[in-house]
Amino acid sequence: MNRKELVNQIFTKKSFLCVGLDTDIRKIPQHLLNGDNPVLTFNKAIIDATAPYCVAYKPNLAFYESLGVKGIAAFEQTVEYLKKNYPNHFIIADAKRGDIGNTSAMYARTFFEEYDIDALTVAPYMGEDSVTPFLGYEGKWVILLALTSNKGSHDFQLTEDKSGERLFEKVIRKSQNWADADNMMYVVGATQGKMFEDIRRVAPNHFLLVPGVGAQGGSLQEVCRYGIIKDCGLLVNSSRGIIYASNGEDFAEVAASKAKELQQQMEAELAKI
Amino acid sequence: MNRKELVNQIFTKKSFLCVGLDTDIRKIPQHLLNGDNPVLTFNKAIIDATAPYCVAYKPNLAFYESLGVKGIAAFEQTVEYLKKNYPNHFIIADAKRGDIGNTSAMYARTFFEEYDIDALTVAPYMGEDSVTPFLGYEGKWVILLALTSNKGSHDFQLTEDKSGERLFEKVIRKSQNWADADNMMYVVGATQGKMFEDIRRVAPNHFLLVPGVGAQGGSLQEVCRYGIIKDCGLLVNSSRGIIYASNGEDFAEVAASKAKELQQQMEAELAKI
Repeated sequence: MNRKELVNQIFTKKSFLCVGLDTDIRKIPQHLLNGDNPVLTFNKAIIDATAPYCVAYKPNLAFYESLGVKGIAAFEQTVEYLKKNYPNHFIIADAKRGDIGNTSAMYARTFFEEYDIDALTVAPYMGEDSVTPFLGYEGKWVILLALTSNKGSHDFQLTEDKSGERLFEKVIRKSQNWADADNMMYVVGATQGKMFEDIRRVAPNHFLLVPGVGAQGGSLQEVCRYGIIKDCGLLVNSSRGIIYASNGEDFAEVAASKAKELQQQMEAELAKI
Repeated sequence: MNRKELVNQIFTKKSFLCVGLDTDIRKIPQHLLNGDNPVLTFNKAIIDATAPYCVAYKPNLAFYESLGVKGIAAFEQTVEYLKKNYPNHFIIADAKRGDIGNTSAMYARTFFEEYDIDALTVAPYMGEDSVTPFLGYEGKWVILLALTSNKGSHDFQLTEDKSGERLFEKVIRKSQNWADADNMMYVVGATQGKMFEDIRRVAPNHFLLVPGVGAQGGSLQEVCRYGIIKDCGLLVNSSRGIIYASNGEDFAEVAASKAKELQQQMEAELAKI
């Protein structure tokens, strides 16, 4: 999905919500565990319930890998289900990959050719040749970690070099030599608040994928105050706050209402642009 | 496997060779492709042939993930085969994972509990709480990316902060507050040559996992000149230089002779300690 199509979806649906499918077998409602494929059943129900309120889904690979072969099958089936039933939703594989060129190229083929998903999160530590193999796929995106939502983001990402440039700023600045705002986004945690101003100074036009609203404590309003741009430029993710809002039989219904709540706040923010 | 056991293996076998199982379906000998499970068949043959000459195996997850469910099954079967037949070999999953705490904890359970492997490569960009969930498993190791073997290692890893400390040095220094030389190693590329001196200044006692000998152009002798310590402290990895040395019917035999060649060079280096 290219940028124009993504922006169209956002303004049509009045939402820039991404629902994180961090499906943990130990957290999904008990009554699903009796079925054949509880992860897929859960995902389908969550997707059907939340699809009207979001523009993107982001399965985090860790949760699927933890179940071995069965988990990877559930991941593949989830992607298939999305592509068949919700072809206008943007699909992000949250994998935080990044390796030497030869290996990154393997990952790129897996995610962009085999699974045909729209975007992949990538870790920048290994530099240019670990990222470029993911580029050059028409309509596909790299979402590079820049300033993450966790406490550990302070350990290295904020380190200033001699000229006063912080590591996350250097990552954003350098990576703009490898890709542009049509095939690269950056991960910036919602918990970073006012730092969005600094991010927009180095990446005025890029889409940002923003995790950390909800369970991690970030504020949608603050993210928008400093981060929103003319064509929105934000995908705000919520995982646990939506998919585990209830673990009773009404889990999908409650997830829908949580997603709708966020969508309405987003509609208000989009109206201000 | 704890440090004492690993060091014992190294001095018993006079080898600190790690064989990288980067098994690419497009590169393995044609005649294997007719079988049921060519990746597993290839791995078993490579393992049986090289086991006398190495102390560790390192499957890179990218190559298995690229085959979807079948690939993950082949990875699991390879690990099972190793654990059953070669229980004294150290197993490293080269996955370069690292995510927020909640997600890193999922990865840790997968690799250390489900698969029961010895070590996992982890990317440091997200800081302390992305790494610590991997610690605290008795006899299990985190192998943190420090100074990698690729060209892109120069993009961020060498950035100096105001005090002149480079990012890879900061990673090594800070991470020593989270773990010690009994449960953490560092990835340092063989292509980094004299930089091993600088690494040993900040990590005098840690084991280093050293990729980049062979196909990537690193020199074993140079690595040892600057990197070897009293109890060796090195695991030197070769992947393509061993496993794809021949793609004829003699592939396992040729792999064995390449592994033996490296083992003999290592024996000479160990004799100098």
